[in-house]
Formats: sequence, structure tokens, C-alpha cells
Amino acid sequence: MSDVPFSSLAEFRALLVGMPGPDATAVEGATDRNMNLTKPPAALGRLEDLAIWYAGWRGDARPEIKAPQVVIFAGNHGVTARGVSAFPAEVTVQMVANFQAGGAAVNQLSKTFGAKMDVVALDLDTPTADFTQGPAMSEAELVAALAAGWAAVDPNTDLLVTGEMGIGNTTSAAAIAHALFGDTPKSWVGRGTGVDDAGLSLKAQVVGEGLAANPGAAEDALEALRCLGGRELAGMAGAIAAARAANIPVILDGFICCAAAATLEKAVPGALDHTVAGHVSAEAAHGRLLEALGKEPLLSLGMRLGEGSGAALAIGVMKGAVACHSGMATFAEAGVSEG
Amino acid sequence: MSDVPFSSLAEFRALLVGMPGPDATAVEGATDRNMNLTKPPAALGRLEDLAIWYAGWRGDARPEIKAPQVVIFAGNHGVTARGVSAFPAEVTVQMVANFQAGGAAVNQLSKTFGAKMDVVALDLDTPTADFTQGPAMSEAELVAALAAGWAAVDPNTDLLVTGEMGIGNTTSAAAIAHALFGDTPKSWVGRGTGVDDAGLSLKAQVVGEGLAANPGAAEDALEALRCLGGRELAGMAGAIAAARAANIPVILDGFICCAAAATLEKAVPGALDHTVAGHVSAEAAHGRLLEALGKEPLLSLGMRLGEGSGAALAIGVMKGAVACHSGMATFAEAGVSEG
Repeated sequence: MSDVPFSSLAEFRALLVGMPGPDATAVEGATDRNMNLTKPPAALGRLEDLAIWYAGWRGDARPEIKAPQVVIFAGNHGVTARGVSAFPAEVTVQMVANFQAGGAAVNQLSKTFGAKMDVVALDLDTPTADFTQGPAMSEAELVAALAAGWAAVDPNTDLLVTGEMGIGNTTSAAAIAHALFGDTPKSWVGRGTGVDDAGLSLKAQVVGEGLAANPGAAEDALEALRCLGGRELAGMAGAIAAARAANIPVILDGFICCAAAATLEKAVPGALDHTVAGHVSAEAAHGRLLEALGKEPLLSLGMRLGEGSGAALAIGVMKGAVACHSGMATFAEAGVSEG
Repeated sequence: MSDVPFSSLAEFRALLVGMPGPDATAVEGATDRNMNLTKPPAALGRLEDLAIWYAGWRGDARPEIKAPQVVIFAGNHGVTARGVSAFPAEVTVQMVANFQAGGAAVNQLSKTFGAKMDVVALDLDTPTADFTQGPAMSEAELVAALAAGWAAVDPNTDLLVTGEMGIGNTTSAAAIAHALFGDTPKSWVGRGTGVDDAGLSLKAQVVGEGLAANPGAAEDALEALRCLGGRELAGMAGAIAAARAANIPVILDGFICCAAAATLEKAVPGALDHTVAGHVSAEAAHGRLLEALGKEPLLSLGMRLGEGSGAALAIGVMKGAVACHSGMATFAEAGVSEG
């Protein structure tokens, strides 16, 4: 697990500014290699871009994906008291037990694609405060959750997926998106685990109240994470930042993961350059959020489960892309005539 | 490998009519199971439909994917004499050697997703006749290629991908699509391995000449396969039919695979019900062909390589879908509260 190099929000913010970029030599080497592989130019489409991108972040023109890690963060939300979810809040802890027992969707997907899976339950007995009444977290609580996220990243992993479980957290994510990107509360809320039309209206109202109760959230992205987020969102943000520091590419999951990630990008533009969008979910606003982040999703299969499931499925795409790039013969090696 | 139960085109045609359908009991059992898994209803989106569909064709409400098979058929085309490809015809045999040596993209993808890969080279020394001068194949040649395709399917496989290699075969596929679905020759041709604008115009002209030289092709789909196809297209059609007879679901690949498959569907509507479209390729007409077949692709990543590569990548999606369905805990098993 990774050592945590910050103990305050100011230190975390400063770290984001000095993050490493991709290795230009590896990008050049991978680009050259790609041009000589036994296929018509660009015939593997986006897989070629993904492989070169991955090579750059790993600093290796012919990389392999051997040790993916999926980390699921769980947190509870005071805003559930407002009735914003179709499921009761105790489902968060029940699902953590299900993850630990191997019974959830993301367990099966992690196993299918050879990923180690870790579950980090963050103070489930102490929900965040109801953000319609003031900040969800104190600065110390935010820093603790960011640090837990940072620490959870295995420095030996070579591809990270961050996922979440937290009843009420689509409302939290919608509030963050609204704080970061404006527009109306309604434009950012969706059905989550399955609320009806009345539930949808209530979520929009709650999001609006959240912004009103936390005026600083619209001014600063990490303040939005503190005031409107939850521990599992901060955990994901911390893990995504830790991955950047260790040259580990990240596959983003759905709406909640992307809202958490967006706070990093808004705080320091380019902070998500080491990430790719694993999928676009059926949660209404996810597509808009990806557009705002300039991310084109790898998959579009109508998933809206969270828990890292869409990103875990996309591990297969990343593995395929990198396997082609690093395993294929060149024209010269195979004795194949070029066009 | 599968025994071949036909020795004439009439016998093959008759077999297509009497093919088995999905198992209604398995579909019902899988649908019930899906409703009780630890996730909000429909939260896995299309993965749920895929798993239930797969369960039905396997006759098992809780199936597993343990033994996928990728079969690549290769053939040479007389129509290459017309200059329709950006690569010389000898690349077909060179790429067969590359498949056998493990150096092609589809080798890496098969390995990534645990699929056995077989290569079936079909009379590469004897290209089909130039279809602008008359039928590409005699009936005996077509039947031999269909039989080779049928025989290539391992009856113990539980998921089949059919792919192809054959310089010139996007022109052949475009001619078949034009014969089956009408519209203009131009509407079905694309850049294949990378022809320029002049090459594209030439391909459209050649497709038009092919239809004019083979008037029977527009009347009967298997006649279109004989007159305008190639051995590798017929091999894929034979393999897809063999899979149906053995309750093996199939992932279709790109434009050429789908053109070959379409001849079965046009011959006997419903003949492709055991197939799913693995991806939509960048070859211009593939999206239109999928629409004509009523198939929604699993992936859209700008791939246009053929050799089963898009479908092989989609094995990961199918494996993920089935693993979730069969491996997840139910609400009762996990002690999770329902919404």
C-alpha cells in the first residue's frame, strides 16, 4: 500500500500541481512500434491509441498489464435522511459484506479479468453530515478519506479501477457536478438505484439546497468535495491522485466515480490525463459529465450499478489493447508484405 | 471437430430450416435468477440480457463460459486481379503463417480471453474465380468450404468467434450485401485495408459488375454466397450453422463475417438468433449491415482489422456478463435488503 505524503488539504492540493506526466520516449517508441505491426495502419482503431497512451504512462514502449487492482470505497451519507435513495442506508454495510464474501458483480468481473480486489469501508457507522444543512465533512474528515484512498493503492499495480458503494451517493455526485459545472440541479440528477419521478424531483431539490447551504462549493473544487461529497468519493479522488504519482493508469467508472475525479481536474487541469473513461452509464448525467471532462467512454452497455463494475469490464479492453501492441509481430518479423 | 451432416447445397439448406431454438426453461430460470441478484433491477444493463440470452442457447440457467473457440478462415479471391485491395494477394498466405506463429492481433486477443484459436486455410493456391466474369465458386466448391467451416467447430466449445483473412474480401462482402439488401454498390463499399478514393470507386464498379455477371445472386442468398463470396466467407457461414446445431452461441465479427452470416439469415430468417454482434467496425457499411440484420453491437472502438479481432475482444464482455449472472449472490444469500 502507498505511503501518504500529505497531512492537510493544502499539502494535497500542492501535490496535485507537481504530478508527473507521460514519458515522451516511451510514447515515441510505442508509436514507432505500432506503425510496424502486422495490420493495416490504424486498423485496431482506438486500441492503438489506448496502447500508446498506456505505454506513455508506464514509461515502457512495450508494456504488459499483469497486476490490475480494483479498489471499492464505501461510505454512508447523511443526506439519505432526506429519502433520496430507493434503497435503505443499511445496504451500504450489507454490500460491503457481500464484496468481502465475493458475491457482488464487481467480484465476478475482477476475477474474470485477473484483478486483485480490495474493499475499503470508510467510517460506515459515522455518516457524513446532511449537506443540505452545511458541509458534509470537516477538513480533517476529508483529508482522512483522501489519505485512505491514497494508501489503498498498491504501488505494484499497473492498472487501477476505483469504484464505490454508498446509498445516497448519486445525489452527492449530482451536487458536486452542479457545483463544478453549473447548469440546473435537475440536469445532474438521475434515478440512481431506481427512484420514481417524485424521487427524481426530490433529488433535484436536495441538490439545490446543498449548493445554497454550501456557497463555497461553487468556488473551489476540493471544497465541493468536502461540502457535498462523501468519504467514498474522497477515497476515490485520493486513489486516483496516488495512481498519478506512481505512473499507474486509471480506468474511471460511472457517474459517482467521475464526479469525484472531476474535483481533481477542476482543481488542477490535466490531473486526470492518466485516466480513461471505462464506460458511459445509464445514469442520466454521466454522459454530460464525461463530455465536460473531455473523456470518450470505452463501453456503452447501459450499466448503472457503480461499485466499479463498468470500469472493471473495461479492464478487458485495456488488456486486449496492450496485448495486441506488445505481443504482435512486426511486418519484418513475420515476413508479411506491406501495402 | 464436428461431423458434417450434408454433402450438397440442398442438404445444407434443408438443415438450416430445422435448427434448434433456445431452451425456454433455461431462459425462464435465468430470468428469475437475474431478478434476485444483489443489484438494483436492470443495473447491469445489457449484460443481463446477454447472460439470459446465453443461458437460453446453452440450455442452462446458470451457465459458465469455459472454452471459447476462435476460428479464422482464410481464402484467396480472383477479384484481386482487378486491383481492389491496398495489399497484394500473397499477404493472405503470409498472414496465415503469422496466425500459426502467434504473431497476429487475434492471437493476442484469443490468449487474453482464454480462447483456443484455430486457423483453417482454404485452398489458398486456388483463388476463387473473378466474380465479375461469372460465379466465384462452383456448387461443389461452395459445399466443400461450408463443410470445412462446419467441421472446424469444436463441439465442446461454449462460445464461438469466426474470423477471416482474405485479401480482396471486403469487395466480396460488399457484393454479397448489395445482392442481399439492394441499394447502390457504392453504399456497400469501404476502404478495406486502406484503398484511396480511386480504389473506392473501383470497388463500387467491380461490385456492380459482379451483380451484373451473376443475376442469380440477387434471387437467392446462398447463391449470392456461391457467386460473390469466397471460401473463407463460406467457411464462416458453415461454422455459424454448425454452432447453431450444437447450441453454441456465436459472436459475429466485422463487415465480412456479417456479410457471410447474412446469407444464412436471408436464406432462413432466424438463422442468426444464436449470434450477437461483437462490434461495429470502421468499415463504412458495417453499421448499415448490422441494422439490416437487427443486431446491436457490443463494442464500437473504430476497429477494422477483420481476422475475428473485434469479436475476440467481445469475448471479454460475454465472459463478464455470464460471470456476473452465474457468480453473484442473491439478496437472500447475501443478507442484503431489497429496495
